[in-house]
Amino acid sequence: MRIDAEALAVHLAGPVPPSGRTAWLRAGLRRAVVDGALPPGTTLPGARALAARLGVARGTVVEAVQQLVDEGYLTARPRSGVVVSWQPLARGPAPAAPVPRVPSPGQPDGALYPRAAWARLVRGVLARVPGDDLGYPPPAGHPELRAALADHLRRTRGADVDPDDVVVVAGVAQVGALLVAAGLRRWAVERPGSPGQGAQLRRLGAHVVEAPVDDRGLVAAALDDGGALDAVVVTAAHQYPTGCVLAPERRQDLVRRARAGGFVVVEDDYDAELRYDRDPVGVVQALAPDVVVLAGSVSKTLAPALRLGWMVAPPRLRAAVVAAKHTADLGSPVVDQLALAGMLTSGAYLRHVRRVRSAYRARRDALLEALARRAPGVTVTGVSAGLHVYLAGLGAPAARRAHAALERLGVAAQVVPGGPVHLPGDGLVLGFASLRDAAAADAAARAVADALG
Amino acid sequence: MRIDAEALAVHLAGPVPPSGRTAWLRAGLRRAVVDGALPPGTTLPGARALAARLGVARGTVVEAVQQLVDEGYLTARPRSGVVVSWQPLARGPAPAAPVPRVPSPGQPDGALYPRAAWARLVRGVLARVPGDDLGYPPPAGHPELRAALADHLRRTRGADVDPDDVVVVAGVAQVGALLVAAGLRRWAVERPGSPGQGAQLRRLGAHVVEAPVDDRGLVAAALDDGGALDAVVVTAAHQYPTGCVLAPERRQDLVRRARAGGFVVVEDDYDAELRYDRDPVGVVQALAPDVVVLAGSVSKTLAPALRLGWMVAPPRLRAAVVAAKHTADLGSPVVDQLALAGMLTSGAYLRHVRRVRSAYRARRDALLEALARRAPGVTVTGVSAGLHVYLAGLGAPAARRAHAALERLGVAAQVVPGGPVHLPGDGLVLGFASLRDAAAADAAARAVADALG
Repeated sequence: MRIDAEALAVHLAGPVPPSGRTAWLRAGLRRAVVDGALPPGTTLPGARALAARLGVARGTVVEAVQQLVDEGYLTARPRSGVVVSWQPLARGPAPAAPVPRVPSPGQPDGALYPRAAWARLVRGVLARVPGDDLGYPPPAGHPELRAALADHLRRTRGADVDPDDVVVVAGVAQVGALLVAAGLRRWAVERPGSPGQGAQLRRLGAHVVEAPVDDRGLVAAALDDGGALDAVVVTAAHQYPTGCVLAPERRQDLVRRARAGGFVVVEDDYDAELRYDRDPVGVVQALAPDVVVLAGSVSKTLAPALRLGWMVAPPRLRAAVVAAKHTADLGSPVVDQLALAGMLTSGAYLRHVRRVRSAYRARRDALLEALARRAPGVTVTGVSAGLHVYLAGLGAPAARRAHAALERLGVAAQVVPGGPVHLPGDGLVLGFASLRDAAAADAAARAVADALG
Repeated sequence: MRIDAEALAVHLAGPVPPSGRTAWLRAGLRRAVVDGALPPGTTLPGARALAARLGVARGTVVEAVQQLVDEGYLTARPRSGVVVSWQPLARGPAPAAPVPRVPSPGQPDGALYPRAAWARLVRGVLARVPGDDLGYPPPAGHPELRAALADHLRRTRGADVDPDDVVVVAGVAQVGALLVAAGLRRWAVERPGSPGQGAQLRRLGAHVVEAPVDDRGLVAAALDDGGALDAVVVTAAHQYPTGCVLAPERRQDLVRRARAGGFVVVEDDYDAELRYDRDPVGVVQALAPDVVVLAGSVSKTLAPALRLGWMVAPPRLRAAVVAAKHTADLGSPVVDQLALAGMLTSGAYLRHVRRVRSAYRARRDALLEALARRAPGVTVTGVSAGLHVYLAGLGAPAARRAHAALERLGVAAQVVPGGPVHLPGDGLVLGFASLRDAAAADAAARAVADALG
């Protein structure tokens, strides 16, 4: 089929513009091809005829047609002219539903994020950073941030860490991904524990078993012996979700088993900086830097949206972990790394942590007061740190009802299913970061009380 | 072994401070344990005796000791008192050498990065972003950036893309990682091609074969038929390293083979926006959005340090790709995403591209002039776009000599080994982004000429 210049002109939208005529013609022709107005096999009019009809230079037509030939929409055939060669296609089925936002009762209040201070830090970094640092980042992280984090983790968490030990990552979630990539395939996670963590490790292809948690934390003695594991996750400072602290003899037992069994302990130190009633317990990592991976982030103290965290890995894992980071994404964004480094070394980070700790302590106190008043029979644990409390042993129906009611209030919560665990099951994680005043705390407590019936 | 209060006090550094005595004592005791001054099994003096010796309250000693018991350094034994339980350890061997910075002749000049503009964009984002957006990001990317990128890619690259089709990633390197995680295991890469790309895919566990490139681009006909591949990488707009454009019939052939063979084409559109002598050729993706993954980033136009890019994936891959992004790092940093969205929608991004394009065109022209003068026998290809030119067929010794000489000048270069390829082998990629004036261009050309002997 051949189309003449007159018919083709109908498919070109709008009048010929005074300038940018080649681009206009190219876009119009491409649209006509892609929309099916010019089906495959259609022969275009000659350049001279089309140029005359449109009132443009012949060179304009030749150039636009050549561009579409180069792009594969048209084919120039010797003697027979230019024909449409693009094959339209039926669009496939709609994509599956996207992965929902991670529901996180541990999500901080975005209103407490130090917006102006962070903007100043970024401006300061951009004013002073050498141009070379704007190239591909060092995969292990910028040296300034690694040094600042090592100092910070030594001072605030008692960690045994030098700058060379630190790897900057995109939050604690990436730590799991990097360790699996580094060859750790057989994992144990806490039960109860973070539901996202086990699911992520399984999606990464790891084999995951569960280790029970009681009111003294992870029961490592319940794990199989005999080298059947590569890594064991522990939330030692503030167990997620129950909030207990890993007991001293459990720490020593875990380290002993790790050394004997050849596995590493992955210490997810996710919210230790937000501790309200006494100094946080120091990290297990300092007891045994040979077998403990310490993982943390600014997701609770600043914002999850920054995607900025760290890991401290035993020397024997370090090269593999840095290579895995390089392979995954070539390294973390440099400006954000340097902004955080500046915040840490200037003391602004610790001042910010003190400020939000005070705000969250008040929210926690209001929630505990309201729960004691509205739902006095409920066992509340894990109140000494973090952004959530744990309501133990509600029973599945009540936990689900409370979860639904809290969700309607915009309060983050998570049902923790019961099962063969040492703690009363069917509990509820209740995040209090968003409860900005006593009325909000009271409404949350009422939702829990109503769900109990 | 028992240590008395007098002996223990020797190990506590400095005088007792006027405040923060518990923290001071805790840190001092911990250091004495970790340094081996108090070996495992040592029994500490009673709290009363130590308090008296130090001149502090007994409660201070009890609290500090209890903290170290909680952390696992000490153990309280009924009747026999508190003993040191921490086991010192021999540090393992030094870690392997870290992965070096990616050498990239395609790295832009950090001096052209719009520092002040980016700082303003970040400040603007922080002033207006809702607190909820500072939580965990949507794994596919923030809707504002996805919409801005879809519009940008439609207008500047002729891509067939809606906002729902876009996934925000940490640069093109992450595209490979996500596609392997989404199940694409058997890859073909271009030869010659980016050496990092094949190496990355192999580290990710993919099986990688090479497809030859000639002066019309990738020769897909050389690939095995019969469904033996999951993905084929192509740098269609400006082949890396040779700089040729994928020819029209090659585009159609590639798409036909992808549909017949069930593989996807991964179009690495890494530098198409920096095209100097005519409009860039449109993307292959628009020809066949059912089988082409379009991948790009701001690494060449803004800075690799931002780690910000995108992919447009066929509908059948999208859910798996978004899940892989979620599993890898939970999503990309939100503030940077919104800053780029603002830059795109305001027109500032295109203005910036025009500005750097003009600067790089001048640097390219100076280099070409100097090469023509100093080394007139050298074949220079791929000059019409990007941040590098390709010096073909130098021979291995000359290419290596030139590489070393350029490196001494701080000019990025990369030797491309010869072999069974259609193009003259043993070429050299020469990045011109850092050649800020004619003298720098002349020095680079002289290094090449000297290497030719």
